[in-house]
Amino acid sequence: MLAASLATGPVAAEPDQARPTIRDLGRAPGVLSPGPLNAITDVAGVRVGQVTLRSGDSVRTGVTAILPHGGDLFRDKVPAGLSVANGFGKLAGATQVQELGEIETPVVLTNTLSTARGIDGILDWTLKQPGHEDIRSVNAVVGETNDGGLNDIRARVVTAADVVRAIETATPGPVEQGAVGAGTGTIAFGFKGGIGTSSRKLPASLGGFTVGVLVQSNFGGVLSMDGTPIGVPLGRYYLRQEIEAERADGSIMIVVATDAPLSDRNLERLADRAFAGLARTGAAFSNGSGDYAIAFSTHEGVRRTPERRAGQATVADWPNDRMSPLFVAVVEATEEAILNSLLKAETTTSIIGGQTVTVEALDVEAVKGLLAAGR
Amino acid sequence: MLAASLATGPVAAEPDQARPTIRDLGRAPGVLSPGPLNAITDVAGVRVGQVTLRSGDSVRTGVTAILPHGGDLFRDKVPAGLSVANGFGKLAGATQVQELGEIETPVVLTNTLSTARGIDGILDWTLKQPGHEDIRSVNAVVGETNDGGLNDIRARVVTAADVVRAIETATPGPVEQGAVGAGTGTIAFGFKGGIGTSSRKLPASLGGFTVGVLVQSNFGGVLSMDGTPIGVPLGRYYLRQEIEAERADGSIMIVVATDAPLSDRNLERLADRAFAGLARTGAAFSNGSGDYAIAFSTHEGVRRTPERRAGQATVADWPNDRMSPLFVAVVEATEEAILNSLLKAETTTSIIGGQTVTVEALDVEAVKGLLAAGR
Amino acid sequence: MLAASLATGPVAAEPDQARPTIRDLGRAPGVLSPGPLNAITDVAGVRVGQVTLRSGDSVRTGVTAILPHGGDLFRDKVPAGLSVANGFGKLAGATQVQELGEIETPVVLTNTLSTARGIDGILDWTLKQPGHEDIRSVNAVVGETNDGGLNDIRARVVTAADVVRAIETATPGPVEQGAVGAGTGTIAFGFKGGIGTSSRKLPASLGGFTVGVLVQSNFGGVLSMDGTPIGVPLGRYYLRQEIEAERADGSIMIVVATDAPLSDRNLERLADRAFAGLARTGAAFSNGSGDYAIAFSTHEGVRRTPERRAGQATVADWPNDRMSPLFVAVVEATEEAILNSLLKAETTTSIIGGQTVTVEALDVEAVKGLLAAGR
Amino acid sequence: MLAASLATGPVAAEPDQARPTIRDLGRAPGVLSPGPLNAITDVAGVRVGQVTLRSGDSVRTGVTAILPHGGDLFRDKVPAGLSVANGFGKLAGATQVQELGEIETPVVLTNTLSTARGIDGILDWTLKQPGHEDIRSVNAVVGETNDGGLNDIRARVVTAADVVRAIETATPGPVEQGAVGAGTGTIAFGFKGGIGTSSRKLPASLGGFTVGVLVQSNFGGVLSMDGTPIGVPLGRYYLRQEIEAERADGSIMIVVATDAPLSDRNLERLADRAFAGLARTGAAFSNGSGDYAIAFSTHEGVRRTPERRAGQATVADWPNDRMSPLFVAVVEATEEAILNSLLKAETTTSIIGGQTVTVEALDVEAVKGLLAAGR
Repeated sequence: MLAASLATGPVAAEPDQARPTIRDLGRAPGVLSPGPLNAITDVAGVRVGQVTLRSGDSVRTGVTAILPHGGDLFRDKVPAGLSVANGFGKLAGATQVQELGEIETPVVLTNTLSTARGIDGILDWTLKQPGHEDIRSVNAVVGETNDGGLNDIRARVVTAADVVRAIETATPGPVEQGAVGAGTGTIAFGFKGGIGTSSRKLPASLGGFTVGVLVQSNFGGVLSMDGTPIGVPLGRYYLRQEIEAERADGSIMIVVATDAPLSDRNLERLADRAFAGLARTGAAFSNGSGDYAIAFSTHEGVRRTPERRAGQATVADWPNDRMSPLFVAVVEATEEAILNSLLKAETTTSIIGGQTVTVEALDVEAVKGLLAAGR
Repeated sequence: MLAASLATGPVAAEPDQARPTIRDLGRAPGVLSPGPLNAITDVAGVRVGQVTLRSGDSVRTGVTAILPHGGDLFRDKVPAGLSVANGFGKLAGATQVQELGEIETPVVLTNTLSTARGIDGILDWTLKQPGHEDIRSVNAVVGETNDGGLNDIRARVVTAADVVRAIETATPGPVEQGAVGAGTGTIAFGFKGGIGTSSRKLPASLGGFTVGVLVQSNFGGVLSMDGTPIGVPLGRYYLRQEIEAERADGSIMIVVATDAPLSDRNLERLADRAFAGLARTGAAFSNGSGDYAIAFSTHEGVRRTPERRAGQATVADWPNDRMSPLFVAVVEATEEAILNSLLKAETTTSIIGGQTVTVEALDVEAVKGLLAAGR
Repeated sequence: MLAASLATGPVAAEPDQARPTIRDLGRAPGVLSPGPLNAITDVAGVRVGQVTLRSGDSVRTGVTAILPHGGDLFRDKVPAGLSVANGFGKLAGATQVQELGEIETPVVLTNTLSTARGIDGILDWTLKQPGHEDIRSVNAVVGETNDGGLNDIRARVVTAADVVRAIETATPGPVEQGAVGAGTGTIAFGFKGGIGTSSRKLPASLGGFTVGVLVQSNFGGVLSMDGTPIGVPLGRYYLRQEIEAERADGSIMIVVATDAPLSDRNLERLADRAFAGLARTGAAFSNGSGDYAIAFSTHEGVRRTPERRAGQATVADWPNDRMSPLFVAVVEATEEAILNSLLKAETTTSIIGGQTVTVEALDVEAVKGLLAAGR
Repeated sequence: MLAASLATGPVAAEPDQARPTIRDLGRAPGVLSPGPLNAITDVAGVRVGQVTLRSGDSVRTGVTAILPHGGDLFRDKVPAGLSVANGFGKLAGATQVQELGEIETPVVLTNTLSTARGIDGILDWTLKQPGHEDIRSVNAVVGETNDGGLNDIRARVVTAADVVRAIETATPGPVEQGAVGAGTGTIAFGFKGGIGTSSRKLPASLGGFTVGVLVQSNFGGVLSMDGTPIGVPLGRYYLRQEIEAERADGSIMIVVATDAPLSDRNLERLADRAFAGLARTGAAFSNGSGDYAIAFSTHEGVRRTPERRAGQATVADWPNDRMSPLFVAVVEATEEAILNSLLKAETTTSIIGGQTVTVEALDVEAVKGLLAAGR
């Protein structure tokens, strides 16, 4: 699956934010509408910070941090749910999220061999916050995918300071997509992958809530975009040669935010549905892919404040019986976030193990043609 | 979502096996090829038996039984894995399959309120087999979906004898699809659903194994067929009216057979991937949908015979590292089985609660047109 | 492990409620105090009904039904959590409890081959309640253990009507223990087992809540009572002969009720801890044992009423950080309920497969001696 | 629960290996016999290495590394199963162990805020092994408990180099117990906890296998030793004051090794049973306790060698039906390992947050008296 072609030399490409999203190409996956930014930050309070490490011949990696709110994340924890579609990954913090149904730190994404740096960065940042002088236990949530195809991953260049920087520079507003942050060196469907985002806003009759998704795409399969085959006509897809190409592997981290007042159980169910969006892009869910989704709620009524954690509390709740529209929202936003991660990512070249490797961006003109023709 | 139109009277329609499969319409989902029957019975040894109960004004239900092999199922157990995408269902036998990684009975499908009859039928049949005189514990595996939209489900007309009949009449060979057996009264995407099947055969370089799938479709969402939108252009899909229509609910039971020598853990992973096929049809994975997949291996080398259960044994094993092509196979076969369940099912009318209800079959000509136009 | 001795003939023994509880013998397991009844019914609203089937030579079985409250269980559902320590069992309703975090029926206990009758009885009862005319889906929760050592289990004498009778005769107040209801034919640690119950009431400083437990004991191991060895000195225990005696197998169903306003997740955690109480009795947690605990909350503030299920609701919540005393309560009450199930059960004789089988009750005088001596 | 008494000054105590084990005190928990070392290293091939960091006023921590065999752990992976009794912990590597059923590194134990250092140390060691030049993904398994009561945990003094040292100095043979390695600063039941180990060897008729256990004890509850109450008579136990004392919290890491040829599923079931041993010591399984058990098999016939990972393989298997004696073995060895961790640990003093803290060792003479008296 790897699109590795010899080139004259490595070039650290500049992010090309002029590349289109799937909506720019006239497609709107699903039946629901996005929020104003069509980003995870459409969920009020959510912040995203990214540090891109692109230097020399072979550093093509980075960090992406997602903050559920702008307050004290450790004190005012948010309910959360985790879903593991395929656990071939190094996600830190998994069992505590599952046990307590909450997260108490930013969610940090980086590369596979830098999970430890992600944890240490979260600890550095959390322990130094005012009022945190007595904290002795922090459940750092760190996801990763393996960017070793374009990044000298064994060099482990990501530092805890890079992680702190991603957290501290996180902001609301538009999210940069493509080969940035933790998506700098990732590969998806044999094309350059990266960071993508999308959102859905439910009509008032269905609750009026927003669901936002951010993905770090690094997996394989047979690419379709909004139902239209892309991988097969472009001749790049898993099992094309009836051999088990290595590059169906890889992984995806999916972060889901919502302002609906969901219990941790219903957040876990929401996270589960993200994989339906992944499936619709043609993912192979291969053995070597670590496919994770983590969902949290920003609603004040479910936030686990010191007061609520001290005794009998009152919390807001959105019932099982009205979850289905939220499920549709997360499926659609995940599919679209993945498509955007591909479309926005630019061609990236690196030298890995003495060999020059170029992973091409999806050819926008070719995609336009395929989308126009339908099938 | 329910396509309920008034009609002059209920008619117990005859199965129209002249209706096409998706391949008859020129589409072949995925990149792998089916087995000779394009059915779960392409996995050697697997048998399917179906009892259709269609009588009077309001009996539109039945039983479908899948037998992993033609021998003594209780004595020669098969390894199995279970995956629950949404547990709003009454699946019997779940926890024992998960604990022991095996099944020891046929897998029986029926309607929601007849699960008990499914269990009793399996017990009747198992306890009376020769050599079973001392058996005191049987883990009956019974799946169900709710056909109450077309069947007077509260009447609970399915009997243990019907279940025994489905088991005893099970045969290898072609599988009848559509509104038969446990699919007699089901509804999917607002159209008539039912039983569907498909298979994939891997090339020798990928192991040469066969994966077969049989589904009982009864769920909602926004139908796509092989990527082409169908539900939206036909004006029938979940959330069309920005209201939470009841009929995104429903359920699906997916049964997966393979002749690959898989461990129960890898069978569970295989079952997990079936839901990617479900996702590709546009399923909503709604709150009220019981979405289950159960996978078993028929390979002699993993069969749990009395000898192997007596002490240290030698078993065959296909490794994690070579699972990915099997995962692609189950995704594709599940998608195709669902499409076939819809295409093969004929319009069905019933009287429920004093009201005549007609659920229309998918309009084949309309589908042909949409598939031809692409999008 | 089976204490089977020849006797002159089967006698259907009368329940000997004069047999002591562990407290009657001067022992009070743990550090917390029981409620006034020392029974699951100390949790206000909980009702228990039992039907004992003891007739002829070989019918030694029955039904025990636990109702979370006296109202409309289907309409006003209670949050619930399920824990499976070993899933070799036929528990009906498992996956829906796990998915939705609630139960909507009584919890019915019976024998292994009568699970279907338990389901049908719950359906009969639920469907006929006033206002339930339109219900088409009911998640019956039925637990079982295998009483085939004393009961002709293959005869499947339990009927749906027996189950309805157990439900309809359920009452608050004292609970009959020992060889009654679903415990009529069970065996534990090689002695006669049965139904047992106990409770703990937390001091006001810890929340003031009550935790009640009811068990159906039918498992093996090496019996200790409140830490004092009983099985070894009495010469009856698992692995005594360095052979794998069949009767370490069996199962236990544990039902936990509380009036604390717990989320389904914290109810699941509460159910998890029941097995620590089981462990303290010396249970072997053997391969063939189906060991399940299901916990529910009766608190009005977490009840899932039609109003709460219709839209955004407010629910009561007791936080993670204050769960630990409740965990201690369930450990202690489970241990004590098991001890009571043994102490209250009387010697039972039956004819199984043409052979007279007597399973002796625990010898109260011998136990007194051992408890007095300590070790 | 914290036994904190003022003392004249901190003293970094020397390990007192003269302190007795529970067997030295005349008690032999359970009905099975230990192996020759009564240690996890009775399982042939298993190695243990420990680095104790005890310096200055407030460094009381360390690292314990367990190696399944002396070969190339990454190349020749071992099947493994993980059980999480309470997931309030930072265990690294959890989801990949669960997905693939294997471990490919040493199991490293350390303190809560040093999990990242554990990961980095494992990576350092694994990446530098001969033949590992191309490895880009390593699933480091790191467990932890929180020694912040005696160790200035926020200083994070453990380094990756310490971790490498623990791995590289690992040896077969006797295992040092008590306040060493990752147990240097831990507290259990309000007494000094630490590292403990024990084993059981099954008779040939039950398979002849060995089960070895190593624990890092750091939790609370109401201590019993082999059934005899210790915590209550010594006046130190959870809920003694009817208040929620902080120190029921803490955690335990349990590592289980066996030479039985178990599947990953049966290893997970073996790990599950370790918690029954924990329960028998009186553990509270409190909200804040991270209680984990990980089990692996050293049997050559189940090892995942490059050959077995390349295609259809033959593996050894010990069946479900004969697992129960192994379950009893792990229960007994876990209970005994915990008791040893307490008995072998010496009184430890530290200065934490400007306050001198002394956590007393269990008073051996007092324990002798209580054990002799029985109850």
